[in-house]
Amino acid sequence: MTLSLSELLEQIGQRAASSSRILARATTAEKNEALLAIASQIEKSAQTILAANEADLGAGSKSGLSSAMLNRARLDAKGIQKVADSVREVVQLADPIGEVLRQWSRPNGLKISRRRVPIGVIGIIYESRPNVTSDAAALCLKTGNAVILRGGSEAIRSNMALAEAVSNGSKEVGLPEYSVQLVPSTDRTAVTLMAQMDRYIHLIIPRGGRSLIEAVTSAARMPVIKHFDGICAAYVDRAANLQMARQIVLNAKCQRPGVCNAIETMLVDETIAHHFLPDVAKALWERGVQLRGDPLSRHILGSRVLPATEEDWRTEYLDLILAIKTVRGLEEAIEHIETYGSHHSDVIITEDRVVAEEFLNQVDSAAVFWNASTRFNDGGEFGFGAEIGISTDRLHARGPMGLEELTSYKYVVEGTGQVR
Amino acid sequence: MTLSLSELLEQIGQRAASSSRILARATTAEKNEALLAIASQIEKSAQTILAANEADLGAGSKSGLSSAMLNRARLDAKGIQKVADSVREVVQLADPIGEVLRQWSRPNGLKISRRRVPIGVIGIIYESRPNVTSDAAALCLKTGNAVILRGGSEAIRSNMALAEAVSNGSKEVGLPEYSVQLVPSTDRTAVTLMAQMDRYIHLIIPRGGRSLIEAVTSAARMPVIKHFDGICAAYVDRAANLQMARQIVLNAKCQRPGVCNAIETMLVDETIAHHFLPDVAKALWERGVQLRGDPLSRHILGSRVLPATEEDWRTEYLDLILAIKTVRGLEEAIEHIETYGSHHSDVIITEDRVVAEEFLNQVDSAAVFWNASTRFNDGGEFGFGAEIGISTDRLHARGPMGLEELTSYKYVVEGTGQVR
Repeated sequence: MTLSLSELLEQIGQRAASSSRILARATTAEKNEALLAIASQIEKSAQTILAANEADLGAGSKSGLSSAMLNRARLDAKGIQKVADSVREVVQLADPIGEVLRQWSRPNGLKISRRRVPIGVIGIIYESRPNVTSDAAALCLKTGNAVILRGGSEAIRSNMALAEAVSNGSKEVGLPEYSVQLVPSTDRTAVTLMAQMDRYIHLIIPRGGRSLIEAVTSAARMPVIKHFDGICAAYVDRAANLQMARQIVLNAKCQRPGVCNAIETMLVDETIAHHFLPDVAKALWERGVQLRGDPLSRHILGSRVLPATEEDWRTEYLDLILAIKTVRGLEEAIEHIETYGSHHSDVIITEDRVVAEEFLNQVDSAAVFWNASTRFNDGGEFGFGAEIGISTDRLHARGPMGLEELTSYKYVVEGTGQVR
Repeated sequence: MTLSLSELLEQIGQRAASSSRILARATTAEKNEALLAIASQIEKSAQTILAANEADLGAGSKSGLSSAMLNRARLDAKGIQKVADSVREVVQLADPIGEVLRQWSRPNGLKISRRRVPIGVIGIIYESRPNVTSDAAALCLKTGNAVILRGGSEAIRSNMALAEAVSNGSKEVGLPEYSVQLVPSTDRTAVTLMAQMDRYIHLIIPRGGRSLIEAVTSAARMPVIKHFDGICAAYVDRAANLQMARQIVLNAKCQRPGVCNAIETMLVDETIAHHFLPDVAKALWERGVQLRGDPLSRHILGSRVLPATEEDWRTEYLDLILAIKTVRGLEEAIEHIETYGSHHSDVIITEDRVVAEEFLNQVDSAAVFWNASTRFNDGGEFGFGAEIGISTDRLHARGPMGLEELTSYKYVVEGTGQVR
């Protein structure tokens, strides 16, 4: 008997719910053992996974997927080793579950503690990269959460092969087989159905482009943690160390232009613009960056700088393009960032502590930097060990989402017969 | 020129957004001064508010509102004094904004801190009680959040009069006039429109019945924190101090049966049922509680106990009714709670620490109690000073929602020129 898609998802939901109760009680040692078994299972299944990946790429190029998309979906033997290694790395991270976050006593003698517990069942909806399958599974498992994964059609065979290895690893050490489940369907309806399963799924994390995130957010009945665009800016203050400013701008723009914590805009105090712009522009051009500027910066740098439009201030290029605007000091810089930025990662370069603190207080972004590259807004760089993404939301998780952000808490109250 | 409802909400949203930027920078002293001014304004406007309330009640009884609804909407002079006093009480609470939640350094010298900041703009959608207008406004203002309120039609005039007093108080001390705004419309469409304003509103809190919460949850594009039913249980273990058990059950059921942290179900270990049930039933009956039981408890207590149906285990009576079930020990009790309960507040009464800890670990509720009444699941009783409600969600806020739960955080990173 074949199940309909909604029956299938109902079954997946029920299995996740009962697995999550068992996972919530698993010890750190049991979870770590499972992670090691999963890593070995992935290595053992390398041939199967590679064959599945080849089939995905074949189907993808037949159906006309872009080469960028095919590249993101591609795995090779080295890639599989990396996938297994990153599961193993999660073993080293501290288990946050059970941590007593706070405890106190009340005048009536009640002892109250706030303890970290798993969230329960997490849904992850993603595109392209098959490594998300095992990475997300490992982070959820370490935090005692069951997870329901729904990957894109371009990697469905690879994802299923990986998910099977993960499931086998979990089962091998006596944890539930259904701790990690992949929805074995590329039907788009599955996303909507998942988003409505608030009876089973406590949190949905969409990882992918804006249209995927929007679709999940509109349909979802449970909390969604979004990882939206980074329209990030660097502000070079009049009191900046200009050599440091140049290095930070170059790094934040060029080191990896396709990621959300790269800058898209450079704001420069007009009193230093004549001095600073020619120097930084030369270095940017040498690295192949296209510049788009406001009238003053074009006046200084010449017509090689394209005129920036209103649209430029709002665009996440994810490419070697930088918009430049001269400003009349701190206030205009902050105003620009608050108007056009996406509250992700912004930096001020200045030697003036008072100006810096004003910027750090007033700029309302997940991470604000003083004299350091925005590229450091990252779970690994923050020391969280691994991240599930960088949240652009303000509730529950903001900025890098590590293991702690995959947990909830409960209150435990001990009394001696107290009543009200 | 009159604005359409959606233009009006757009205007309210814009005003809230710009007010929130100013509020985020307000000092504790400024915010406290505003709270005191608001309390005085409420006292000064007592006559206006009372007249508005009378008009609401007149209109309500004409349109056939139930007397319970009219009672919830009613304010008298003493009620207005209470409203003003509870705004003043918020002055005494610690201001959580600016608190450094954690700080650490990285090997590369970066100094990272996680600091508490306001959420931004909070939408509160509520029914009946006009005191929510000023209570919610006071808590949001203390935490530097702008708030958009949308009360029920049964108290629209009272809410508008109260909101004007609040607005005047805020303006009087130089904080934005639009820190607190009430949607001056009883059109149901306003709720849906608000729920879609994720451009301005960062969090929506619906306070009211299930249908209101469901409507907001379905429509909302931003995070929603829900305050759903409490289907709470007391489990009387075989190792319970039976006198204590009786007192806790009586208190948790009878002290205020209409609230979410009252119990609806009593689970009793069958080995003590013959001894315990007659005693506790007598006391419950004396207080006018109707009992509904499983076969064994009816066998022990007689036919005065109505037969409990499957439906009873899932019902939040909010009334002097208690469902009784005998169980074969801890595991069956936990299984019952996990199957039928609403993960709100549950208690075990036992002298056996090992059994208690198993219960506290395995019962997945916002608050789990050992030898104390579930009625203590409350912001005031936990020592939070005031609460906006008791969250039944698992993300961001779980259990009593005090000032801290009305905040977000951001990362501040200080460097000396670090790049990746």
